[in-house]
Amino acid sequence: MAPTVLSERLKQSVTKDALRSYFAEFISTFFYVFAVVGSSMASRKLMPEMAANPSGLVIVAVANAFALSSTVYIAANISGGHVNPAVTFAKAVGGHISVLTALFYWVSQMLASVMACLVLKVTTVGQVIPTYTIAQEMTGFGASILEAVLTFALVYTVYAAGDPKRGALGSIGPLAIGMIAGANVLATGPFSGGSMNPASAFGSAIVAGKFQEPSSVLGWSLGWSHGCWTCL
Amino acid sequence: MAPTVLSERLKQSVTKDALRSYFAEFISTFFYVFAVVGSSMASRKLMPEMAANPSGLVIVAVANAFALSSTVYIAANISGGHVNPAVTFAKAVGGHISVLTALFYWVSQMLASVMACLVLKVTTVGQVIPTYTIAQEMTGFGASILEAVLTFALVYTVYAAGDPKRGALGSIGPLAIGMIAGANVLATGPFSGGSMNPASAFGSAIVAGKFQEPSSVLGWSLGWSHGCWTCL
Amino acid sequence: MAPTVLSERLKQSVTKDALRSYFAEFISTFFYVFAVVGSSMASRKLMPEMAANPSGLVIVAVANAFALSSTVYIAANISGGHVNPAVTFAKAVGGHISVLTALFYWVSQMLASVMACLVLKVTTVGQVIPTYTIAQEMTGFGASILEAVLTFALVYTVYAAGDPKRGALGSIGPLAIGMIAGANVLATGPFSGGSMNPASAFGSAIVAGKFQEPSSVLGWSLGWSHGCWTCL
Amino acid sequence: MAPTVLSERLKQSVTKDALRSYFAEFISTFFYVFAVVGSSMASRKLMPEMAANPSGLVIVAVANAFALSSTVYIAANISGGHVNPAVTFAKAVGGHISVLTALFYWVSQMLASVMACLVLKVTTVGQVIPTYTIAQEMTGFGASILEAVLTFALVYTVYAAGDPKRGALGSIGPLAIGMIAGANVLATGPFSGGSMNPASAFGSAIVAGKFQEPSSVLGWSLGWSHGCWTCL
Repeated sequence: MAPTVLSERLKQSVTKDALRSYFAEFISTFFYVFAVVGSSMASRKLMPEMAANPSGLVIVAVANAFALSSTVYIAANISGGHVNPAVTFAKAVGGHISVLTALFYWVSQMLASVMACLVLKVTTVGQVIPTYTIAQEMTGFGASILEAVLTFALVYTVYAAGDPKRGALGSIGPLAIGMIAGANVLATGPFSGGSMNPASAFGSAIVAGKFQEPSSVLGWSLGWSHGCWTCL
Repeated sequence: MAPTVLSERLKQSVTKDALRSYFAEFISTFFYVFAVVGSSMASRKLMPEMAANPSGLVIVAVANAFALSSTVYIAANISGGHVNPAVTFAKAVGGHISVLTALFYWVSQMLASVMACLVLKVTTVGQVIPTYTIAQEMTGFGASILEAVLTFALVYTVYAAGDPKRGALGSIGPLAIGMIAGANVLATGPFSGGSMNPASAFGSAIVAGKFQEPSSVLGWSLGWSHGCWTCL
Repeated sequence: MAPTVLSERLKQSVTKDALRSYFAEFISTFFYVFAVVGSSMASRKLMPEMAANPSGLVIVAVANAFALSSTVYIAANISGGHVNPAVTFAKAVGGHISVLTALFYWVSQMLASVMACLVLKVTTVGQVIPTYTIAQEMTGFGASILEAVLTFALVYTVYAAGDPKRGALGSIGPLAIGMIAGANVLATGPFSGGSMNPASAFGSAIVAGKFQEPSSVLGWSLGWSHGCWTCL
Repeated sequence: MAPTVLSERLKQSVTKDALRSYFAEFISTFFYVFAVVGSSMASRKLMPEMAANPSGLVIVAVANAFALSSTVYIAANISGGHVNPAVTFAKAVGGHISVLTALFYWVSQMLASVMACLVLKVTTVGQVIPTYTIAQEMTGFGASILEAVLTFALVYTVYAAGDPKRGALGSIGPLAIGMIAGANVLATGPFSGGSMNPASAFGSAIVAGKFQEPSSVLGWSLGWSHGCWTCL
């Protein structure tokens, strides 16, 4: 009977509505990673001599807030507007979506991120795809705690925005999600990188060819584990 | 019968409601181009020695996000709030408006953009009207891909915001449209110019007298072709 | 009969609801002018050697957008949320409020602006209250056109936001009003000052003791005349 | 009978709904203080040689606006979304919550703030937790007036957003609250510190070990007294 259940579930995962939701996640994650990684590249192009500067932090944080608000909004009534593998993980653990659906969402998000970074690399000749790194004086443990707090804040806000008891307040949910992300990039960008999104960390590491380097792997695995941590 | 149909359609295009919607597009595009081109001029006036700087990018991107949100909002229930010939093109291809209406919208948008740039040129003595240019190291092909992604993101968000199945979420649609535009200016401003709007590219090129120069013509034709591309 | 009508109108102007609306205008204008003039002072304190810089423009524009959105919002269902004598003028000419009510609104707005500037002057020892000035190379005529466009954009957005046919979109009206103001400060701040509000121009000129100087008087009278211009 | 009433009230203060609301205040205040104090540290890390600069002010103000909007939003339909002891005080004086509930809210908010600052201190090795200070040339009286105005503006906006007569406008209340906070940080940050929140002032002073220093104590006691002042 188990194979029947599985095949039944697989069938549910390839209905027209399901495919539409994978596509919505793909599109939203593509736009989000494009804006976030692109704004980081734009900031470096304008101030190449400075590794980081306050205006650059504003650029990346505002791009994060604006892009996440928009992309959560456009996918909200199709796929739920996760735009982030950690959010998908939390929704699967919480029983809001099936594990199979979560897997399809993850593949869509990862593919979208890699493609967004590829487009940026191909079009901006001679520019480097930035990867998420932690500040030199930060310990891996410290960065891990910071990123855990960020991911927790994001997932908590997503859950709060989806609460059906909100009534009229529900309508600004995507803005609240984008804003908490923007605020947290402002708070932790120069310390732990402020990734919060395993997909964008994965895509930029793959395309930059720095997947083997410790800091990127760290960031990538951190994102996943924190997604777990927030659900315990 | 064809002439009858045409005259019938023309008659529909000059009803009071239709004229109101052309006027709404004119006003909204005028305000949008005024704010976007004006903020670019303001940024150059404050930092004339630097071709571009991070704070200047923030100024132009925030002006784009704020102005597009507002101008889409004020025209939303009259003309649909396109404020962009590429959006009008997509809506015509999608069958939401007739080709004739699209033509009238385009004329309104182009006229508004030229007038906004003229007002800026006449009032700010000795200032140059900035035109959209691509970075020196960018190839025309790369810039073309980037602008295509931007226009696609904008048109996709406009379509998503107009989806009647949204319910309460519909109310923040104009903000989502403005925010994706702002995020994408942050991502691509220093690379491809981040125009996304053939009307503002056209108006600034006309008033600056640089219509013959390759980069402007490129930007102008790119905008149109991308509008097409997004509908295929 | 005329005196009876007048006394009748006066009686209507001092009902509990009317007094509440004057108070709402006073509070909102006080908060708005406090934030806008204060942010201009804060920007000058942080960068005293530079007359103007891009970050300073971002500070004043974001303060304008945030403060106007909030203050229009808090007064919206009590007094209509004008927060600006030019808006009150337009509403009076449009027949939405009586001339007598407009007069009481103006007095509330002017008093609030003077008090906000006084609080800022008394508390920040040794700081100068900034007044709205136009750039040296600007002609009075050019600045006048620019400010007319700004005031027109603001009043148009206020009217659009108050349109009862908007439905769900109505809820983000105060944000659209604040955002068009912020975008226009970004566009014209370094050229014409980007006042748009006769009350804040009046208050800062009175408290700074520069009421006699041509540029301030110009700015003050411009604001009023543009309010008129927008209603013709 | 008095002890019975007290025990009855205590029983009401530990119901499941009550505990949920204390937890909501704890979470929201934790996220808010984390973002606000963190963004101040991030700004100092990027520009250590400058005590304050315009971009740093933008960073802290935008973090304030975004974080407060989000955290008020996520707690709004559970605890009312105070996120600030001064707001809780005003709600208690206004009779919207009982004194006992206010005490539990305060403990939650203070604990959350201390924990957020502790997390930031432990994770960012070698960074100093910034405390709220007033500018050298400011008098304690002047700073006190400024902070009173800020707290009054915040509490007034909270009350206005909670007005049930708002209808559709109610949905953007959390944004209006976040925006007035952001605007006022832009206006007074370089003068009085722009705290507005006794919890974040308390937490950062405790964790920085500067609780005995006059300026911090001043800031802390100011916040409380202003909360009172706004209710008279």
